[in-house]
Parts: sequence; C-alpha cells; structure tokens
Amino acid sequence: MKVETVSPLAPARFPNLPSIAGLEAAIGRAGFYKHERPDLLLMRMPAGTRAAGVFTTNAVGSAPTDWCKKALAATRGAARGLLVNAGCANSFTGPAGDAACKRALEEAGSAIGVEAREMMAASTGVIGVVLDDAKIPPALLQMRLGPVSWPEAAAAIMTTDTFPKGAGASCTIDGVKVNIAGIAKGSGMIAPNMATMLAFVFTDAAISAPILKTLLRQETETSFNAITVDGDRSTNDCVLLFATGQARVPPIADAKDDRLVGFRQALSKVLADLAIQIVRDGEGATKLVAVNVEGAVNDVSAKAIARTICESPLVKTAIAGEDANWGRIVMAIGRADQPVRKEMIAVRFGDLYAARDGMVSAEYDEAAMSAYMKRAELEITVTVGPGAGKARMYTCDLTKRYVEINGDYRS
Amino acid sequence: MKVETVSPLAPARFPNLPSIAGLEAAIGRAGFYKHERPDLLLMRMPAGTRAAGVFTTNAVGSAPTDWCKKALAATRGAARGLLVNAGCANSFTGPAGDAACKRALEEAGSAIGVEAREMMAASTGVIGVVLDDAKIPPALLQMRLGPVSWPEAAAAIMTTDTFPKGAGASCTIDGVKVNIAGIAKGSGMIAPNMATMLAFVFTDAAISAPILKTLLRQETETSFNAITVDGDRSTNDCVLLFATGQARVPPIADAKDDRLVGFRQALSKVLADLAIQIVRDGEGATKLVAVNVEGAVNDVSAKAIARTICESPLVKTAIAGEDANWGRIVMAIGRADQPVRKEMIAVRFGDLYAARDGMVSAEYDEAAMSAYMKRAELEITVTVGPGAGKARMYTCDLTKRYVEINGDYRS
Repeated sequence: MKVETVSPLAPARFPNLPSIAGLEAAIGRAGFYKHERPDLLLMRMPAGTRAAGVFTTNAVGSAPTDWCKKALAATRGAARGLLVNAGCANSFTGPAGDAACKRALEEAGSAIGVEAREMMAASTGVIGVVLDDAKIPPALLQMRLGPVSWPEAAAAIMTTDTFPKGAGASCTIDGVKVNIAGIAKGSGMIAPNMATMLAFVFTDAAISAPILKTLLRQETETSFNAITVDGDRSTNDCVLLFATGQARVPPIADAKDDRLVGFRQALSKVLADLAIQIVRDGEGATKLVAVNVEGAVNDVSAKAIARTICESPLVKTAIAGEDANWGRIVMAIGRADQPVRKEMIAVRFGDLYAARDGMVSAEYDEAAMSAYMKRAELEITVTVGPGAGKARMYTCDLTKRYVEINGDYRS
Repeated sequence: MKVETVSPLAPARFPNLPSIAGLEAAIGRAGFYKHERPDLLLMRMPAGTRAAGVFTTNAVGSAPTDWCKKALAATRGAARGLLVNAGCANSFTGPAGDAACKRALEEAGSAIGVEAREMMAASTGVIGVVLDDAKIPPALLQMRLGPVSWPEAAAAIMTTDTFPKGAGASCTIDGVKVNIAGIAKGSGMIAPNMATMLAFVFTDAAISAPILKTLLRQETETSFNAITVDGDRSTNDCVLLFATGQARVPPIADAKDDRLVGFRQALSKVLADLAIQIVRDGEGATKLVAVNVEGAVNDVSAKAIARTICESPLVKTAIAGEDANWGRIVMAIGRADQPVRKEMIAVRFGDLYAARDGMVSAEYDEAAMSAYMKRAELEITVTVGPGAGKARMYTCDLTKRYVEINGDYRS
C-alpha cells in the first residue's frame, strides 16, 4: 500500500472524545503489513458489559463476522473484549479461517483475562488469505492495556483510509451523564447494508443487549446504511456497540422508554458522524455529496432512487469534473426501476434548479451552477413525483485517483 | 468533445457488409456538434418493409423512443424510413421534445417521400436539450439518397465512440439467400435492458413484423442485454430491425418455423457481434472481459451474479491494473443477493483456478496468473453452487480514461 495524502475532505483534526468509564485499549503490530505500522487493536471492557452488532449482508461473509454473530447469540450480548486487525480480512478462508480466528481470540483473550467466548473479532484487508494468527502472540507480548488513545486506536484499524475517524457525544439518562465514543474505518468497498467498514462504538451507559441491538439497527439505517462510495459491499463489515454500564444509570428494559430519547439522539449523531467521515475518506474523493430524494411512493423507493444516483459512475464522474450534468441524474432516476412521474421530475443543486416539471428549468443559470459545482460539499435534491417518500444518502465523486488506488492495491 | 484515440480493443477494420436489397441511405451534417462531423443519418426502405424494435426500460425514456413505440404499434410494424441524429438525445424534453421529433420526421419523411407515421427516429447525445429541428431542413437539402455506405452510416451516429461498428451475415431461407447487415453505436452509459446504445439492423428477407419482434426480443437477451460498461442505462436505447422483403423469400407466419433456424442464427451472430463491439469501445477500456457464471439456482440468478461482477468498480479497476484480485470477485458474488453455496465457490481466469471449493486454490500460480492478466481479452468463470443456472456477460475494465472522458463530456 502506498502512503496516501490525506483526503481533501478530511476534518481539520481528530475530535476530542469523551472518556468511557471502564474501557481500556492496547495497540500493537503483528506485521500483517510489510511496512511499519500498527495493525492490531485490543480492547477490554469490564464485567457486565453488554454488546450488539450489525453485520454485512454479503453472502460470503468472513470468519470474524461469523464468530461475532455466533458469540453474541450464545452469550446473549455479553462481551468483554475486542480484537481488531488490519491487513487481512480472513474472509473466504473456510474452516481454516474460522480456526485461525478462534485461536487469535483465545490468545488475545488470555492476555487480558477474558474468555474467548466473550471476545469480539473484526478483520479488514485482503480477502481470501487465512489470518496468520501465529503473528499475534508475539505482538501481544509488546502490548500494554491502558486508557484509550482514540486517535491511535482509530489509526490502528485503517487500511486505505487516509485519516483516522472518531466521533463522540454525551447525554443524560435519567439525570445521569453518559458518554458515547466511537471509531470507524472505511474508504473503498463502501455500500449500504453495510458499507465496507468497521465501527466500534462504546458507551458507559448501562443498557441491555436487546435494547442496544434495537437502537443500533434503527440508527444504522440512516447512517452506515445511507452511505455509498462504490456500491461494493464487503464481506467483513460490522458495527459493534458496547455498553460498559459504569455510568450506573438505572436499568432500562424497553427501547421505547422516554428516558432513552437523549441517548438515541446522541448515538444517532455519533453513527452519522462516523458514516459521513467514511465518505469523506472515499477513495480518491474530492467532493462530499448528499443526495435527497423527495416525492417517491415511499421511503424504500426513495432510498433505491437515491442509491442509484449515488452509485452512477456517470453522475459521479460528472461531479468530479464539476459539471452540473443533471441529465445524467435524470437518467439515474429513470434506471432505478422505481415508480416515478417523469413530468414532475425536478433536479436541484443546492437551491439552484436545473430541471423542473420534467424539463430543463426556465431559471437555469449556467454561471451560478458552475460556481456551485466548485464547492467541496454538494447537496443534490430530486423530486420524482407527488408521493411522501423521501431519503437522504451520502456519496463522493469518482476520480482518476479511485482507479489508481484500486488498480494497484494488492501489489 | 475531444478527439479520441481509437480503442485498443477495436477490430482491425470495418467489416465488409452484405448489401440489403432496396435499402438506401444519406448522410449529412445538421450541426448538433460544434465541430465538423456528420451527425445525421437518413435511410429509406421500400414499400412493404416490416420493422420491430426493443427499447430502453429507463422510466424517463425520450421523445424518439416514445415515437417509435407508438408508430410501430399504430402501423403494426410498417416502417419505411429512419432518421438518426447524434449530439442531442431529445430526452427529458417534455411536449416540446415530442413536437420537435415529429417535425423532424415530417421534414425528413417529406424529403424521401415517406409519411411521418412510417418514419422511425433515434437520437443520441446530451440529455435534457430539445432537438433543434430547425437545423434539419437545411441539412436535408445537402443530402442525397444512394447505396448505403456502411462505414459512413456507422460513423454518423457515433458520440464518444472511437470506431464505427458494423456486422453482417448471410443465410438461406427456404433455399433463398438473404443478407443481414447492421450498425451500432455505444461506448458509455452502457447497461443491460438496454445498454445505452442504438443499433439498426436490416435484412432483405420478407418476415412479418410479429416474427421480427419475437426474434429480436429473444436474440437481444444474449447480445445487447448481456453487456455492461458502467451499469448506467440510457434514456434513448433502441434496437430496430427492418426487413425489406426484397429477397422474395416465401412468407413465414410462425417464429418457430424451421425455415427460420438459419436466419435466427445469423441474426444472433450479427447482434452479438455489434454488442461486443460496443464493449470493445467501452469508454477508456483496455480489456474485454467475458464473465461466465455456472451453478446458480437458475439462469436469471446467474445473470444477476454475472452483472454484479461486471459492474463492480473494484473488480473493474483490478482488471485495469492487471491484478487477478479474485477476492473482489468473491465479494461481488456475495453482494449480488442471490442464493450461493460459499463452500462451493470457484473462480477461474481462463483455465487458471484462483479459488476452488470456497478457498484459495491449491494450484494457484501467481506467475501464470499475472501473465494471463496481461491479455487484452479475458475469460472469468465462477462457480457459485450446484445448480444448472448459467449466464455469460461482457464488460470492460474501469480506467482513469473513463473518468477523464466522463468528467469532461459536456464542456
């Protein structure tokens, strides 16, 4: 992997994240990359921690996602450890990959006093190579658990990412302050359900595993499942949410409990922030694009149209060329195979109408449009009919740099 | 539009096409492009000609495709003229676009003594601009009908194409020799159902419109509906098939008539040849890739998997980089949302197995694989399970040149 220059869309700095009571981390180098870089992240949570996850819908999957799904089911969401490696996805590796994943978790769990069955695993990197778990014990010997350094933790899980990604928020549950902090990685092979990405989010709130799962599933829909870089959905995606319970909030048994409103909002903010950072780091990206669809027959249809626009190579290359080529957006609307009323189609860049009522807009102003297209962050809004269905998705442009990065990844 | 260098995958020369009795053509310049180039093709067929068409499934469509569908229905497949323009798609242009299309056909029809209702229209170019039909009468004054010059006819309908596309074949029907000749254009915005392309195919056989339609629909499935460059399906795609009847074969009333076997094969050959030429001219393409899927639950599922592989940006960029990154092919199989048996997945480049039985192949040979990937024409074959479903699709690689061409098209 070549050293990448940082994405022009990167945030100015890594945010200050709140501390999560009871959480410890260690960073190491197992050597899954030839060059010097941390590639291993180990985290420990206190007894009583509850966890939930959402995982890739890719039919091939991977050893670590298979492990997490089984372990979470077996322990009913009790998890106390997390081992993440970059440089090897351990996907499409059959029983050998499963065994390597298990051995790695046994070794890592043993080093931090956590049983393997309470360990979560995540891997990212090349598909089809069995995890060389023999590299892990020597690395563990060099690692020391301590307070979490979020920028370093986020950096250890990067692959083609050009900047580490973190987000945090605080809220109160029943008058008790609780914190949320998360990190994520992802840059290419990003599509909804899930995007190709890993995200690990932690809170010191005490929330049961079923509630965590419900909240995570719902809030993933408008964050990690609303971004797409290239439409390619990886075998290893996962978002894990851990609640250490150290903030000692009163137990809450119902996801609809009013006392969770603030927490849900804070969680939603953290997930959306991390998701958008992934698009900001889209391989080769120079533009962050939000696509809004209005007037669809329902929200699902609206999202299908939004996704078709977001994944159209012709739309994405036009944006890279700072060309308000709204005809390609109309083409994408038409090829989404969704019910639309073509005489009502409108396309807007920011507040500037390009098309309205099924034709080029009378107020179309090429100069104003060209100026708008030079922005680094764009809003595209389309109306497709008289319905109430709407959706919002995020994507980036398709540049020569994307081709360069992905035409030369393994070598 | 910049002058393109010819695709490295282009055929060595334009083929010699058989002549189609009764067919005449004229080429002109209406000025839909700023620079000097022919952009207008007018063709005349004798009385008694029968026609059929298949058209884009894009929900937005275009004035010319709407016209053709209505005209073919109204005349039950009687058509005697064809007007094609490049440089303006006349799509998403509302009633003004429909009126411009009609006026253009009235003018062109009048010039060749054919009623507008028997004229077919096809347009290709920028979406959202009403056809400036006032440019057509002056051009018509400069045009003279005569024997068809196929290379010139094919060149007049090009947009970002880098070479003109033609194909021909001959066969016998009931002992009478008949000819088939066709031209096509297409390079970007190419996806199945239909690819973004125009194709016009002519025969001197006498075949009824309903039979033409049946044959065309069936043979399009494995030709124009089996290619994809970028997954973007245009608003203007159409394939028109005309039978002039001048070869005086006995009338055939049933598409299943044995006497049509040779004709169907010849038609299939012409359509497939034209379709593959479009992929050979895929914008920025340096590799022609055939993707075979075997072992799917049925042919439809196999085609969905083939299409996902063919349209994966990560697969296409890897091929551009001559990297046998089979892990990305496995990822694409997994994200096709089709039933697969992951422990049976195999991936083969030519005869070289990269993966077999759900893992990297024991016989994987990096050197042989690297040598294979340097070829200009590649065969990728995947097994996804024990089923009988199979499909074959064609695509090309995704290069920086694609981004360059499409980031700078309108300007």
